[in-house]
Amino acid sequence: MSIKDQTEHIEIAELGQQLRVDAVRAADAAGSGHPTSSMSAADLAAVLLTHHLSYDFDRPDHPGNDRFVLSKGHASPLLYAMYRAAGAIDDDELLTFRRSGSRLEGHPTPRIPWVDVATGSLGQGLPVGVGMALAGKRLDRIPYRVWVLSGDSEMAEGSVWEAVEHAAYENLDNLTLIIDVNRLGQRGPTRHQRDLAAYGRRLRGFGWHTVEIDGHDVGAIDAAYTEARATQGRPTAIIAGTRKGRGVAAVEDREGMHGKPLPDAEAAVAELGGLRFARVDVTKPAETRAPHKDRSGHLALPRYEVGESVATRDAYGQALTALGTAYGDVVALDGEVGDSTRTELFAKEHPDRYFECYIAEQQLVAAAVGLQARGYTPFACTFAAFLTRAYDFVRMAAISGADLNLVGSHSGVAIGQDGPSQMGLEDLAMFRSVHGSTVLCPCDAPQTAALVAGMAGARGIRYLRTSRGGTPVIYAPDEEFPIGGSKVLRSGNDDVATLIGAGDTVHECLRAAGILAAEGIEVRVIDLYSVKPVDAETLREAAHETGCLVTVEDHRPEGGVGDAVAEAFADGRPAPRLVRLAVRNMPGSATPDEQLAAAGIDAGTVAAAVRLLSTES
Amino acid sequence: MSIKDQTEHIEIAELGQQLRVDAVRAADAAGSGHPTSSMSAADLAAVLLTHHLSYDFDRPDHPGNDRFVLSKGHASPLLYAMYRAAGAIDDDELLTFRRSGSRLEGHPTPRIPWVDVATGSLGQGLPVGVGMALAGKRLDRIPYRVWVLSGDSEMAEGSVWEAVEHAAYENLDNLTLIIDVNRLGQRGPTRHQRDLAAYGRRLRGFGWHTVEIDGHDVGAIDAAYTEARATQGRPTAIIAGTRKGRGVAAVEDREGMHGKPLPDAEAAVAELGGLRFARVDVTKPAETRAPHKDRSGHLALPRYEVGESVATRDAYGQALTALGTAYGDVVALDGEVGDSTRTELFAKEHPDRYFECYIAEQQLVAAAVGLQARGYTPFACTFAAFLTRAYDFVRMAAISGADLNLVGSHSGVAIGQDGPSQMGLEDLAMFRSVHGSTVLCPCDAPQTAALVAGMAGARGIRYLRTSRGGTPVIYAPDEEFPIGGSKVLRSGNDDVATLIGAGDTVHECLRAAGILAAEGIEVRVIDLYSVKPVDAETLREAAHETGCLVTVEDHRPEGGVGDAVAEAFADGRPAPRLVRLAVRNMPGSATPDEQLAAAGIDAGTVAAAVRLLSTES
Repeated sequence: MSIKDQTEHIEIAELGQQLRVDAVRAADAAGSGHPTSSMSAADLAAVLLTHHLSYDFDRPDHPGNDRFVLSKGHASPLLYAMYRAAGAIDDDELLTFRRSGSRLEGHPTPRIPWVDVATGSLGQGLPVGVGMALAGKRLDRIPYRVWVLSGDSEMAEGSVWEAVEHAAYENLDNLTLIIDVNRLGQRGPTRHQRDLAAYGRRLRGFGWHTVEIDGHDVGAIDAAYTEARATQGRPTAIIAGTRKGRGVAAVEDREGMHGKPLPDAEAAVAELGGLRFARVDVTKPAETRAPHKDRSGHLALPRYEVGESVATRDAYGQALTALGTAYGDVVALDGEVGDSTRTELFAKEHPDRYFECYIAEQQLVAAAVGLQARGYTPFACTFAAFLTRAYDFVRMAAISGADLNLVGSHSGVAIGQDGPSQMGLEDLAMFRSVHGSTVLCPCDAPQTAALVAGMAGARGIRYLRTSRGGTPVIYAPDEEFPIGGSKVLRSGNDDVATLIGAGDTVHECLRAAGILAAEGIEVRVIDLYSVKPVDAETLREAAHETGCLVTVEDHRPEGGVGDAVAEAFADGRPAPRLVRLAVRNMPGSATPDEQLAAAGIDAGTVAAAVRLLSTES
Repeated sequence: MSIKDQTEHIEIAELGQQLRVDAVRAADAAGSGHPTSSMSAADLAAVLLTHHLSYDFDRPDHPGNDRFVLSKGHASPLLYAMYRAAGAIDDDELLTFRRSGSRLEGHPTPRIPWVDVATGSLGQGLPVGVGMALAGKRLDRIPYRVWVLSGDSEMAEGSVWEAVEHAAYENLDNLTLIIDVNRLGQRGPTRHQRDLAAYGRRLRGFGWHTVEIDGHDVGAIDAAYTEARATQGRPTAIIAGTRKGRGVAAVEDREGMHGKPLPDAEAAVAELGGLRFARVDVTKPAETRAPHKDRSGHLALPRYEVGESVATRDAYGQALTALGTAYGDVVALDGEVGDSTRTELFAKEHPDRYFECYIAEQQLVAAAVGLQARGYTPFACTFAAFLTRAYDFVRMAAISGADLNLVGSHSGVAIGQDGPSQMGLEDLAMFRSVHGSTVLCPCDAPQTAALVAGMAGARGIRYLRTSRGGTPVIYAPDEEFPIGGSKVLRSGNDDVATLIGAGDTVHECLRAAGILAAEGIEVRVIDLYSVKPVDAETLREAAHETGCLVTVEDHRPEGGVGDAVAEAFADGRPAPRLVRLAVRNMPGSATPDEQLAAAGIDAGTVAAAVRLLSTES
């Protein structure tokens, strides 16, 4: 599909100018936006759209479509100008840019049908693109390409280098990174300015094929894309030297012109040759069969005997493996700790659908986001503590409307001797605050298995927290655990308080109830396995009937079970007496039992708190 | 200080065996731990301790001390074996490893006087080491070296490459990275296994000097350290091929031997040549003057007129600059958005104490952690949304007991058109759940300035949230804002509810109160500028006197102001009626006013909520 002749060459250069004009106009109409960042990449976009992208704008779900990820999401005016050139949107819509109600937001999101993932937090396009390219190569086995257009500033993000490593290791020759090296970041020059070779050395060091070009030379761009498509066995980076604000002297290559409309848009449009209405017929991909994602299999979840001791992480690995057997769309990823998280059970059974991400948690989550964008149902797992590494990717995944399962093992002080660096103590807070998230915290093996099965059918960001040590099985194999529910494990007419646990602390609450019962003090016990959404009705009933709720969590006092319970009483009706037991100390090394006692969340402390409350009341 | 002769050569090899023996014994006594990961690096440690490290164990605060960061924190038995060899701890203490109450935790923390920062979350040692090396080179101007011992697995972490880039760009020839390439990660082989050259190509691509050696050849190790110390103008990486579990055939270079004691410790110790008691006289650094960190200057905070409109981000930049003028220990860092966050004001006034970290938020926070470990008072700033990128570093900084100021700008939907990717909507949740943190959310310029000044003297992780748009100055210049306080802005005997805002929403609450007053409905208004610790007393008083608390926050409903207020009523006494208004939608692009209205946190919605409550009650 290379450029044939001088006429085409001129047409493409003209299209580049059209994209610039439209970026200038869109930002001018909005009164804000990033036209100069769009103008630098306009020629790169023009050649892509006319000669190399294979995409059916009428069928964004066409299985053969290339994927285009605008990692430098602030250059959204360029993207929208491309859409206008492709006939996907009209000029009126282009000028709704950044207005309330317009799908043409300041940074692109999947509210637009041709956008797979939200961008705007830099350094995320390539990591997610790697996930898509993995899907294409290892699962779909369809020869679509993934094109990622990135800025030069964002090459400073470590997440980019996690992705660079991952892509090279997986030989992703269906992935092309286009770096718009326009020299200027937001606040001034980048570290490497116009030194294209600096990027080349780094990328080649990781095993990539690289091409350094003048990003305003359409012939060179065309040759580079052709070379990228022909390169076998490794990904290609096209390192394109460009000028920010290219084509308008008042802003071209000047500092202080980032993220604002051009000072005189009318003059700029004139300088760029005026308004144009060229229309590109983007090449459509060949017809191809949609990959078959079979969900007709029978789901045979693992079964456990009441009373046996099983770690919830074990149940996770077993349930996930069963899910993989039943459902062809389920894939698993892990951050090189699959022996601890038990993802290795899935990896052994379904090696074709297992993705080892090594110790790179941002890439772990990003690859999962890319895989779900291709229609798969990923479960990405590492220690709960280390998911904090990927919080920005989780936040952006929520903006993408991604359907994504994240699993954090080794939660809480109950892990014991390894100490605080390995303890997930902030994970519930982190995931609760994510828009539209589901936060699950199972206390035994059947509950874990049931929740894992439930996650595969839910929407949004779903988080499951598992524990390191064994806990007794308390539920029968066929018990159901709807998301948003809870279980009342102990209840009577004389209950003076309600103990609310989640995960390991459910068992501490049950033990505390036993201790207290022996003293003649009755308490209710609730297993709050669904931390978000929370079962407000059961909590209100317990509050009404017992007068006082005591939350017990192996988590920091903020943002977790205590806050979730409190939130159930934010409806303007009088709230009950609330007490929260949580991890307020900085743990060191100790046995799990010592840790629970030191944190004040063991059965003994819980019982003592209830005694104190019943004396006070 | 190179190895002189064959006798010394043998002595060092013997010391390597002693370190192995001690690592085996410590893990055996503990019943857990990572002896094999310690054994691979024992020779690297022995040569460092005897011939290259300059350190006074009696004076860990000696300004001339080298810094040694064990990035592979799970190899703590090696570190503690080094301490025993240096005479810093005795054999009895070594064997308290991982026991409750012992300072020799599973992963090292600064509970040990010779440990500057906690490690155990991989990929953090080099980033923090860069901060220390920056302090040595640009601030202290003392020729200490920073030695970082890292594993090979953790080279997959993007944070490592942020640090590699930063170190090369800043020409940190006082920094040496030692990579223990023992081939095996936790669950199996690493990506590059024994391919030392793979690491070399990557690091040289970034401009580092590299040396590839056999990590069990003490002569080669010695030569490499000597070369690193002699290399000018760039950092050196020593890429050392080693064998995990070296010296004990039952575990050496075998999979499945990670993170557990040796199967037969007694036999292993015998195989390693038995117990040894060599004592190393570690070279002490030359006497040097401690760098002068002058705090005697007069702090002249910026002053604002009541009624003028100033963005809190502007006040932050101005106050920080004033702080820099008064206090010589105050340094500032930014993630290449200083023109937006206003850190640029400091950068212009105090360029010698400003550190540009480019778009690499993990490195931004890590460098700040390194700087505070050298006695400086860092303020690290970027958009609140992008601090989510560094959550794991914040979490680990809390374990390090770091005193650190983090500032997030562009909070909330109030930023307007840029859309959700740029909005800090989870930052309060993230920082509230950090152990020992302070979370501040100012609503006007004088308050911001006062809080910035207060942060410089507080302990732990201090977070300040600033806003993009201007807000009216409501406080007089000399008003005081203690951490943990709040301000009652409006109060009367007929208040039917209390509106609680923080930051921008304080002004919405005030406007709502005005609207309601015109209708004859009186409400109290509280400015909850200190979200953690929270002013429980004032909140309880308001609850008692007005019966109902309404929180209004430009943040997700979970983990922020609403949860903080609820927490004030978790003392077992009956809680009041609580209502929380927060950002429950997924914003798009819109003006700030449209965003506040769409999220239901504008004055009109607040007033409507109060009307509804007063009808209900």
